[in-house]
Amino acid sequence: MYFPFGSTYTFHYLRASFFFDFFTSQFHDMIRPLLSQQLPDFDLAAVYVSDAQYNRNIFFDTTPEAIRLYLLYNHWVLRIVVYAFIIADLALAIFEDPAVIPLPIWATTLIELVCLAVFTVRLVHYAKVIPRERFWKDPKNICIIVIILLSLVDMLIYGSLKATGYFAVRWSRVLRPLLLVNVTEGRQLRRAFRSIRNALPQILYVFLLFMFSVLMFSLMALKLFGKKGLTTNDGGAYFNDYLEIVFDLYVLVTTANSPDVMMPAYNSSVFFAVFFIIYILINTYIFMSVFLAVVYNNYKKYLKEEVRQLVRAKRHKMVRAFGVLQERKGEEGPVVTQASWNQLVRLVQPDISNAHRELLWSVSDDSNKGCIGKVAFVQLADLLNMQVIVVKSRPHPLQMWLPSLYLSSPSRLICRMVRHRLFVYAFDLIILVNAVFIGLDEENPLIANAEWAFLALYLLEILLKLYTFEPRAFFSKHEFWNCRQILDIVFILRVLRLIRVVDSIKRFRAIINTLIKIGPTILTFGQLIVVVYYIFAMIGMELFKGKIRFFDAESTDPEKAFCGNPLLKNSLFAKHNYCKNNFNNVVSSFILLLELTVVNQCGFTAVTHVSARIFFVLFHIVVVIIIINIFIAFVLEAFFVEYTVDKSNLQSCLEKKIEELELGVKQYVLDSFAIEDGLDFCIESKGCNLSARFFPGYKTVDGLLQRMFEADLDPEDFAEDEDFDPNNPSNVTFPNPNFDSV
Amino acid sequence: MYFPFGSTYTFHYLRASFFFDFFTSQFHDMIRPLLSQQLPDFDLAAVYVSDAQYNRNIFFDTTPEAIRLYLLYNHWVLRIVVYAFIIADLALAIFEDPAVIPLPIWATTLIELVCLAVFTVRLVHYAKVIPRERFWKDPKNICIIVIILLSLVDMLIYGSLKATGYFAVRWSRVLRPLLLVNVTEGRQLRRAFRSIRNALPQILYVFLLFMFSVLMFSLMALKLFGKKGLTTNDGGAYFNDYLEIVFDLYVLVTTANSPDVMMPAYNSSVFFAVFFIIYILINTYIFMSVFLAVVYNNYKKYLKEEVRQLVRAKRHKMVRAFGVLQERKGEEGPVVTQASWNQLVRLVQPDISNAHRELLWSVSDDSNKGCIGKVAFVQLADLLNMQVIVVKSRPHPLQMWLPSLYLSSPSRLICRMVRHRLFVYAFDLIILVNAVFIGLDEENPLIANAEWAFLALYLLEILLKLYTFEPRAFFSKHEFWNCRQILDIVFILRVLRLIRVVDSIKRFRAIINTLIKIGPTILTFGQLIVVVYYIFAMIGMELFKGKIRFFDAESTDPEKAFCGNPLLKNSLFAKHNYCKNNFNNVVSSFILLLELTVVNQCGFTAVTHVSARIFFVLFHIVVVIIIINIFIAFVLEAFFVEYTVDKSNLQSCLEKKIEELELGVKQYVLDSFAIEDGLDFCIESKGCNLSARFFPGYKTVDGLLQRMFEADLDPEDFAEDEDFDPNNPSNVTFPNPNFDSV
Repeated sequence: MYFPFGSTYTFHYLRASFFFDFFTSQFHDMIRPLLSQQLPDFDLAAVYVSDAQYNRNIFFDTTPEAIRLYLLYNHWVLRIVVYAFIIADLALAIFEDPAVIPLPIWATTLIELVCLAVFTVRLVHYAKVIPRERFWKDPKNICIIVIILLSLVDMLIYGSLKATGYFAVRWSRVLRPLLLVNVTEGRQLRRAFRSIRNALPQILYVFLLFMFSVLMFSLMALKLFGKKGLTTNDGGAYFNDYLEIVFDLYVLVTTANSPDVMMPAYNSSVFFAVFFIIYILINTYIFMSVFLAVVYNNYKKYLKEEVRQLVRAKRHKMVRAFGVLQERKGEEGPVVTQASWNQLVRLVQPDISNAHRELLWSVSDDSNKGCIGKVAFVQLADLLNMQVIVVKSRPHPLQMWLPSLYLSSPSRLICRMVRHRLFVYAFDLIILVNAVFIGLDEENPLIANAEWAFLALYLLEILLKLYTFEPRAFFSKHEFWNCRQILDIVFILRVLRLIRVVDSIKRFRAIINTLIKIGPTILTFGQLIVVVYYIFAMIGMELFKGKIRFFDAESTDPEKAFCGNPLLKNSLFAKHNYCKNNFNNVVSSFILLLELTVVNQCGFTAVTHVSARIFFVLFHIVVVIIIINIFIAFVLEAFFVEYTVDKSNLQSCLEKKIEELELGVKQYVLDSFAIEDGLDFCIESKGCNLSARFFPGYKTVDGLLQRMFEADLDPEDFAEDEDFDPNNPSNVTFPNPNFDSV
Repeated sequence: MYFPFGSTYTFHYLRASFFFDFFTSQFHDMIRPLLSQQLPDFDLAAVYVSDAQYNRNIFFDTTPEAIRLYLLYNHWVLRIVVYAFIIADLALAIFEDPAVIPLPIWATTLIELVCLAVFTVRLVHYAKVIPRERFWKDPKNICIIVIILLSLVDMLIYGSLKATGYFAVRWSRVLRPLLLVNVTEGRQLRRAFRSIRNALPQILYVFLLFMFSVLMFSLMALKLFGKKGLTTNDGGAYFNDYLEIVFDLYVLVTTANSPDVMMPAYNSSVFFAVFFIIYILINTYIFMSVFLAVVYNNYKKYLKEEVRQLVRAKRHKMVRAFGVLQERKGEEGPVVTQASWNQLVRLVQPDISNAHRELLWSVSDDSNKGCIGKVAFVQLADLLNMQVIVVKSRPHPLQMWLPSLYLSSPSRLICRMVRHRLFVYAFDLIILVNAVFIGLDEENPLIANAEWAFLALYLLEILLKLYTFEPRAFFSKHEFWNCRQILDIVFILRVLRLIRVVDSIKRFRAIINTLIKIGPTILTFGQLIVVVYYIFAMIGMELFKGKIRFFDAESTDPEKAFCGNPLLKNSLFAKHNYCKNNFNNVVSSFILLLELTVVNQCGFTAVTHVSARIFFVLFHIVVVIIIINIFIAFVLEAFFVEYTVDKSNLQSCLEKKIEELELGVKQYVLDSFAIEDGLDFCIESKGCNLSARFFPGYKTVDGLLQRMFEADLDPEDFAEDEDFDPNNPSNVTFPNPNFDSV
């Protein structure tokens, strides 16, 4: 018997009046058979759970048709297609003027039109899924529409201007990376942008103070050095123009022009060095630390709030899924039976193994009642996010085919040998020796031949391991280190083998595992960087393209000595052979911007107007002061969490359950080559080994973030009373993080 | 009636036996008159309180003679003398070969002997103060003795070798900065060194991983670029020697040789740039953040523990002072009367004003009982560390001399005008205009004359303020901004006036106040840096002196083009005019080391053996990876505390008390020029204004640290049972932070 969540509440409300109470109880009896025949909407519940699992916050209609459209909308193929077209759209910069590989304008325009069409189709699809008024309220949809329209307008203007031979600027290209931020899947990126926006006011105050300090030091420098008649290395006047000084001292903060900017003064008197020492202490060390402190502090504060909202939204969705599936059973409140739960999990995660599903159920239904309440049900989204690998380990195939040979004592000896710790050490040593050989001169024939010997040894290692361990376990999906080993043989970068040595030291593994865990979020920062770099690259290309030219090594052009620009004659820029650091195409722009991130290297303001320096200072502020600091703040926070936070409650439950199961079936096997990574449990029953490997960690970035702030969240806090309107479940207001775009 | 702490406990112990009970009660009655005549040892109590206030942890004998010696030992004149001689000893490097100002060997030897004699006398004094066995157990005493002996030995060897014309090295100079660490007053510095030592193991693991990564990338670079036949900008072979590559890539982490190290590969193919991008991402950004995370994490962990011990030691000392002064009064436990308390405070802080002392007493004796218990007494050390400025503000002297004129309506109008907010704004504007004039060309006679006009305006401002405000209040000790204003007129760095503009914006003030508060601790880091720099400078001078020579601008020496070293012919080092960056004397060594801290700039390994690079890598590890990161960690923590921690309990009590007093006397005056800095309370009573200014903050670094971790400390936690032996108070084991030296 099913009581869909909405209906029961409706009855309760009606019952408030006595007259209606009688009427409705009659009515209730009348429709009960109908209700019980009507199956719960598993599709809807599965969508809620899946949304909760991946932290999607989309207000879809709950009609079966809309749900089907919504499922299609979230299909991984469509999402990949969208990203592929975004990448194609961004990559157009490679082919558009100034191009790496020039294509005619009609070709690039055609590709861009196709991309825009795809984005439009995707947006229309989205509009079909969610209620109309929601669609127009969401700024990210508006943003995409505006980007598409502006791109079309720009293409028209550019095409007609070019056709008539006028000068034209493709200004709409700056908007392209904003698509990455505003597509439905760009949640992480939007969150990163929000945390930047939230930190801005605080950063601004420190920045103003910092600029004040730079301006004041510049004034002092002008007074101190302006009339000394010192000359720079190029023979120019030293520190006698205020704006020049401001720029030089700003660059000194980035340490890019240290000690050059100081040398003329220092050469004239030792005491002048004191000025620069104080400047560096205050502006480079103290102010940059204060920037980090401010950014870090804000990052932590707002992230906490966002994750809290995220977790609340997730719980709401799970409560709604519960509302769809709940039944009333005996004395207890509404519950979900194991049968519905199983059907739901199979819908949400079709590739889940039975063993894994049963493990998750036994964690949820701790007391073996065959049904679970709301609190236990809500955990499902988190449980599904936990990485449990179930490996059915069977006896080795050779054991079945040639039992007498495989179980003979020499064969057993080999197996014992391979499983031994010394076997691992021996091959670690071989890898180290190989590394030394790689470093040695390859011209020597002995060394070249030694490489073949090493290859043979590695092959032997793999064969021996395949002989000892069950192949499917050996090649199992998550055996990263083993897979990589196979790759070694064909791998170009043979030195990667050395990673294995590090991997065998436990202390290092802890650090490396943390680094791997923060990897996905580094990808988010990567996107952030791409967005900012792309915008700056587009502007930079319009401003600086063709100002500096690069000549091949074979070129004998006389202009080669000054990068094709007479203004650079005898400049250090040309002498250092920096000509390839230019904005002549999108690839070299990106590399130049990376160099600017590492060290402010802006020699070629010489070739344009002085005001071009604003471009570089702006880039430094956005990338180095803000984004890099947020990145450092994230790494700091992730490491602190790794150092300090214990396993979450849910993790411990899962771990305990695995242990219990293990204890229940008595036999317990640990493979020597696979123990360090997590907890391994192999359960032998009915002739086949069921081995569950449990990774103490979350698969997604959101999981890590949630873990960071879990201590502050009450597991029983559903807060449904404020936000959940049972009479109109399709109109629920999830307390979403506000999805305004940049 | 006084019951010294020790005695009461003794009686209690004796009373355990019935027989003794009767005897002692008789005895008690017998000696009571004697006890009550014996005055409590106020000197001893004052020493305890003073030790608690300044966190001194010295186990002095409690005999009156030892106390007198101890008071002498702690006298500020003696401490200044010791530091003066340490500075003199360190400054000897300026006069010793290689010298900035050469002095004959006999002169420097004589000065050093005097310094060593002073240190010996100080050590003997210390030995007289503390018990003998304690003296020999303390490693910092041993360390000083060893330094003195080794210095003598070195002077002997050096003198005799020099006299006989042999080559000699003054190796003991490396030990000199260790004196700074091991003198009694170097507590903060020792703590900083301890926090570094504690973080070392964790840093080591990350460092090994980091070096592994650098080595692996170097191997890859060797394979990728080694046989391409690329050449560097100087025409040398590019990336074909493994150790060269390791060094180049290590330097790339410091961003010093970016993009130079990448250019040859990048010029040959764009794809090679990917290698460097990945390298920079992993090693510069991720690993450097991980270093910061590890250092920060350890710093926080150990600092917390140290501060906890520090606070415990402080409370023990206060409990002992209480034990000395306590009396039994009525029903209550042992108390300290207001009379003893007053006498004690006057001894501890002779310059305290009566109003200030009464304020502190009223905070301690909240319920006006005339005596305080142990818990209230223990707060005294912290109360004395809080900055309360009591200003007795009287009517303006002119009001007394010429009341009719001063109180006339034009005069009142002037006063009201000066007190008005617009008056401040007007002069802020004048300062800004002045700043613009300073930036303009001074050759212009109009501008030169304008400067006199500005001076006149500033003078007018001061005169008006003196006319309006009572001069003593205006010049009061802590009116930093006003004092500075007077200095402005004679100040060379006239631009400092601009600080006033920043000061008038509240948001900025908060940041600046935090910066000022962390100032004293920055001094500790300054000492740390001096110790490390001095050691590296001494070693660097022995290794590299005279390798690179600097020629004056007027010099026409042909060697000037290559810094006096043929190996530098046509090198970028000489082209950049870096010749003054050398180890030829201690001053240029320090400046060079600072440049190395900012950006690794080690061009002159070219002039010595390649292994000299080890010196620079070592310096980078010690200074940049460890010390700078600890410094950043400190700034971060200090800012977080400022952002998050509320006022301490004690501060709120003090604040409340001030407010109560203010409410009690009805009138309440706020001076417009002095309100922003803290809470100001002016209490008018009996014709004179008593104005107490309360600064919400601590005066000392320890206070700030204590505030950081105050939340974890129980105010009632004295833990005397474990450590305090009432039978033998002179043998108390303070749970000290262990004072082992480096």
